[in-house]
Amino acid sequence: MKATLIYGAGDVRVEEVPDPVIVDPTDAVVRVVRSCICGSDLWPYGSKPASEKGQRIGHEFLGVIEDVGADVNGLSRGDLVVAPFVWADNTCDFCTEGLHTSCRHGGGWGFGGVDGGQGEAVRVPQAQGTLVKLPVAPDSALLPSLLTLSDVFPTGHHCAVTAGVSQGSSVTVIGDGAVGLSAVLAAKRLGAEQIILMGRHTVRTDIGREFGATDVVAERGEEGIAKVRELTGGDGTRQVLECVGYEDALNTAFGVVRAGGTVSRVGVPQYQQVTAGRQFFMNNITLTGGVAPARAYIEQLMPDILEGKINPGRVFDVTVGIDGVPAGYQQMADREALKVLVAP
Amino acid sequence: MKATLIYGAGDVRVEEVPDPVIVDPTDAVVRVVRSCICGSDLWPYGSKPASEKGQRIGHEFLGVIEDVGADVNGLSRGDLVVAPFVWADNTCDFCTEGLHTSCRHGGGWGFGGVDGGQGEAVRVPQAQGTLVKLPVAPDSALLPSLLTLSDVFPTGHHCAVTAGVSQGSSVTVIGDGAVGLSAVLAAKRLGAEQIILMGRHTVRTDIGREFGATDVVAERGEEGIAKVRELTGGDGTRQVLECVGYEDALNTAFGVVRAGGTVSRVGVPQYQQVTAGRQFFMNNITLTGGVAPARAYIEQLMPDILEGKINPGRVFDVTVGIDGVPAGYQQMADREALKVLVAP
Repeated sequence: MKATLIYGAGDVRVEEVPDPVIVDPTDAVVRVVRSCICGSDLWPYGSKPASEKGQRIGHEFLGVIEDVGADVNGLSRGDLVVAPFVWADNTCDFCTEGLHTSCRHGGGWGFGGVDGGQGEAVRVPQAQGTLVKLPVAPDSALLPSLLTLSDVFPTGHHCAVTAGVSQGSSVTVIGDGAVGLSAVLAAKRLGAEQIILMGRHTVRTDIGREFGATDVVAERGEEGIAKVRELTGGDGTRQVLECVGYEDALNTAFGVVRAGGTVSRVGVPQYQQVTAGRQFFMNNITLTGGVAPARAYIEQLMPDILEGKINPGRVFDVTVGIDGVPAGYQQMADREALKVLVAP
Repeated sequence: MKATLIYGAGDVRVEEVPDPVIVDPTDAVVRVVRSCICGSDLWPYGSKPASEKGQRIGHEFLGVIEDVGADVNGLSRGDLVVAPFVWADNTCDFCTEGLHTSCRHGGGWGFGGVDGGQGEAVRVPQAQGTLVKLPVAPDSALLPSLLTLSDVFPTGHHCAVTAGVSQGSSVTVIGDGAVGLSAVLAAKRLGAEQIILMGRHTVRTDIGREFGATDVVAERGEEGIAKVRELTGGDGTRQVLECVGYEDALNTAFGVVRAGGTVSRVGVPQYQQVTAGRQFFMNNITLTGGVAPARAYIEQLMPDILEGKINPGRVFDVTVGIDGVPAGYQQMADREALKVLVAP
């Protein structure tokens, strides 16, 4: 079969690899129907040291089950399923608490002999715990939105939930990438009344408005902070959703958060040090968020998609076949594409 | 009257100053019955640049009302009252939310013409919102414990509350100073079952055990982290209460917190940068806490003291008169005293 490998910065290739087969009795093999490229895939695409050995990549997919191991219950050949971006047993104490990203028997796609998601098929470890059935046909028009359940929509949702967004909240979302837009949608879904989206790409912030943003602030840095404060009577918002991952974005978050408020970040931090000293302390600011346990949220978020209430798949603006994946990376890196859908 | 002024590192003096009088109609004048020295007073005592002009200091006191302004209701001459370490109107939106440290009309003791607490009397701004009546006589044996309601006990409580300590919690407390011990007591009061106290001064950790610590870890750094992990099946604790304020202590906190857990800090940060990058993010760690809104907790914590259920005043081990305050600072700086009570 064909699968995507990354060899280093700017070097993504689609190659022939062995077809996946059941290895452990807890495995399943899934034929990928839809996959996609994540903003977080752009980090290695931008900076990974070159290597002679490629690494499988991609961690978002839905597809049809082709085979199941002897210990997998509740899943059968032909089922359409979605996979969260971390596989997990869904039974350990961490999973039970909803923190599947810390599962005691889980792991990431593309590492340690596990397939990546940007390929034609995937061996899924801990299949029973990992995969969630989708009650639609494999040609459903809902596939793009259901695919967002793998990562981007639960990531936005995790950001909103950990920040404490609820009915009537006033929220700032930093970043107009697919995660930021998903965070807007999630905040709206949780009842936020004022949603200030900080972003300067009109095509994207327009989707943000569709998703529920009440205000858009294009300015950045101190100017952007002043603008958000102006929109909030000088105080900032109680919840701030940081969906970028750069230190500048985090500092903007600290600049627009109200005293006693919470900054949640889901943009993978491209920094180690956080400026959170005296002022942060005197204002009782909370820093939370982290890698989203998508698996914990899938069943909860799916009904609104099935009922057509929300359309998180709006973040996909380019579709490619498997051979188009390398070009898709480049389009996203160049900001020509917001998020690339892959139909292998 | 006599009051304490700080002129620089190591230079605390007791001097004659004008007796306080009502300035604003919202003021009261309180004759101080008990005051004390705070661990946070040691920061300027250790590092404040020398100045020819002294600054009033001290922010914890209880006393008897001598005079009230025309706009103060519910308080009368002769009432015994305790003051939280930040004065506040107790009516603005922040106060209503329980964040009196961000009060829109509040401030700190010793600044801008407001008296410090380490003196014979204090003009109290926003007296009606700030002061809380104590239903005991001015010679009650409960005074030391009631005085802790000014700061140290609510600070420990704030740490435990913001960390999310509740019935059955497993908690690590970092620091065996008066705040750390108060955090132990607060965690116990909130129902924590396992309380690991990290500290190496046996006299203090013994009080910690009295207060409810189930384990004491004297080791620091990596060794201390390993010990706490050993005591918690390798995982660390869900709640970590950082009661020191040094970056090392915070890094220890990050080392002993369980994935998905919370580090709350109430030790005034003596650093600006926090190491909270990729690993912190992947483990979904929350950093919270901050300066404690003591006023929000006084009524809630007082009954247990009045009923003799808890004795937070155990943290006082030395008592001085007003003239003994400078020596008291030195004793605390030298760690000869845990916390110094002042009976002016």
